[in-house]
Amino acid sequence: MLTGSSAGSRVLERLDRLYALGGGRGANRPGYSAAEDQAHELVAGWMEAEGLAVERDAAGNLLGRLPGRRPELPEVWTGSHLDTVPEGGRFDGALGVLAALDAVATAALGERTLAAVAFRDEERGCSGSRARAGDGALPAKFVEVHIEQGPRLAAAGVPLGVVTGIVGYVRGEVAFEGRAGHAGTTPMDGRHDALVAAAEYVLRARDAARSIPDAVATVGRAEVAPGGTNVIPAAVRLSIDARAPDRERLDRLAAALGVEGAQRTEPVEFDAELRGLLGGELERAGVPVVELPSGAGHDAGILAAAGVPAAMLFVRSLAGGVSHSPDEESSAEDIALALDVLAGTLKRLVA
Amino acid sequence: MLTGSSAGSRVLERLDRLYALGGGRGANRPGYSAAEDQAHELVAGWMEAEGLAVERDAAGNLLGRLPGRRPELPEVWTGSHLDTVPEGGRFDGALGVLAALDAVATAALGERTLAAVAFRDEERGCSGSRARAGDGALPAKFVEVHIEQGPRLAAAGVPLGVVTGIVGYVRGEVAFEGRAGHAGTTPMDGRHDALVAAAEYVLRARDAARSIPDAVATVGRAEVAPGGTNVIPAAVRLSIDARAPDRERLDRLAAALGVEGAQRTEPVEFDAELRGLLGGELERAGVPVVELPSGAGHDAGILAAAGVPAAMLFVRSLAGGVSHSPDEESSAEDIALALDVLAGTLKRLVA
Repeated sequence: MLTGSSAGSRVLERLDRLYALGGGRGANRPGYSAAEDQAHELVAGWMEAEGLAVERDAAGNLLGRLPGRRPELPEVWTGSHLDTVPEGGRFDGALGVLAALDAVATAALGERTLAAVAFRDEERGCSGSRARAGDGALPAKFVEVHIEQGPRLAAAGVPLGVVTGIVGYVRGEVAFEGRAGHAGTTPMDGRHDALVAAAEYVLRARDAARSIPDAVATVGRAEVAPGGTNVIPAAVRLSIDARAPDRERLDRLAAALGVEGAQRTEPVEFDAELRGLLGGELERAGVPVVELPSGAGHDAGILAAAGVPAAMLFVRSLAGGVSHSPDEESSAEDIALALDVLAGTLKRLVA
Repeated sequence: MLTGSSAGSRVLERLDRLYALGGGRGANRPGYSAAEDQAHELVAGWMEAEGLAVERDAAGNLLGRLPGRRPELPEVWTGSHLDTVPEGGRFDGALGVLAALDAVATAALGERTLAAVAFRDEERGCSGSRARAGDGALPAKFVEVHIEQGPRLAAAGVPLGVVTGIVGYVRGEVAFEGRAGHAGTTPMDGRHDALVAAAEYVLRARDAARSIPDAVATVGRAEVAPGGTNVIPAAVRLSIDARAPDRERLDRLAAALGVEGAQRTEPVEFDAELRGLLGGELERAGVPVVELPSGAGHDAGILAAAGVPAAMLFVRSLAGGVSHSPDEESSAEDIALALDVLAGTLKRLVA
């Protein structure tokens, strides 16, 4: 199905082997499942075959180290995760681990120790990288390759993108109160229809997010009570998920949506120096430098929040940018370019 | 609780006795329940005490007849129903039966036979009056007194209103298709959000109904799929209930709402002569004549659709026009006026 340059062929082959592990439709390797265990064993075997020193930490995270000439210096890590959502795609997470393995295995010996990392259980809240950040040794720098989970690079016509950071979000519920009434006998003018108010909110949320660059807002759930076809709705509850790349935009969005008091996670900005290095490698490879925020959380965001200078390189997602689906797709050419840019960046970091 | 003129006091007393029958909160006399049976027995007893000839037809409808001098002439009926919704009000249905009983019991002997009628099981689709219309003898004329199930007479400051007819309605479901996507990684511009489309529909339905006099439209139910807080909705189904007083307005409303193919019930217009008689009696009583459509179905609508010249007199509903609730309320004064107008109208019809 996939055709590609030779540089990416080994990665694609290994992606196929991981994809087959969980059985069923698509990738099925939930965090800490038997299938994720098998994926970690498979990758650990490949690490050992490349002569890397394998470590499994208390949380089950997997590291394959190429020791540096000066092992006393802080390490440089690259990697991602091997777990997937149910019925997930071939690339999400696994691509970053296999790119890391390829880059570390083919790297020349540097000053610093270089490690390829597979964090556990990313999809349900990054528990593996969170655990490591909480009670394990951390590297001096971290670079993560990941398939973009959206259509922006494809729309821009570029294979790779430098991620500026992880968006912050507010999440919560918004409640609308109305007055129940007979659908036939209550004139339009006297109504207090909770669903009409909720509908206005859904459109207001859409408009507010549209008016703020790189912001998004989603109402994914609606509960209407009493829910009779001939009764004017008395109460509606909506879920709201709103995200923006920096605090200022998140503040504005949250204020427009009236969800200031809801669950809030602050945006994480990636390291400027690492972003610059990635951009330089892109230029060297003749790829236009496009920067974009990540709308979803990643292990790199957890490490960045823990104080590790971190950055991410997104690989163009084909098939409309579909994510968490067997339809997820990237080309061998784009992957080969990502391997090249990652290797060049790591070379500078360990030198 | 209720204070009133002597003319309505007996009706109010009897409403209280019916109200107590089903137990629980409010009135609880669903169609063909033991409580509705008890209500029919109680009213049959009052009919017999007034010397009326009691008939129970095959569907369980109750008639109390005052024979006319010329029993071969088609009969005149007045009445309503004794069943209620669960946790219903004191007046809905029962007021019209007790007003009918009062009017028939106190009527002078006329040419035509006059009957007070209690139809069975009105609230779940008028099954009693439908059964009678399908296979029983029908009267020459029918007049129904009923509490208004809305706020219009109260808003107009008048105690009684002449009903022009029963609105027609279209009911159905409207489906919206979108494309599921990650709430964080899908830019606003590339979204196909089914809930945004549904929200626009809810507001369009409200606006369409507002733009057509006496039309109403209600979205009472909404189902959002997949329903995850961080997933852009891929599919939404809305219920739509739209009503208008005549075919032309119902056509326009249905076209605006895109529910032409849904379940449709045509409007029913009440008899112009009977409406004129009711209006004349209102004028005689010094009450301004206000005409209004009924947004809900009634037994009078079933008889009218079966070819019986029919009309209805609405009694002002207090407490904001709340219906199908223990809070439903009418005043003794308004009820006394209704008894007076009904008696005067029937007197002319049987003469």
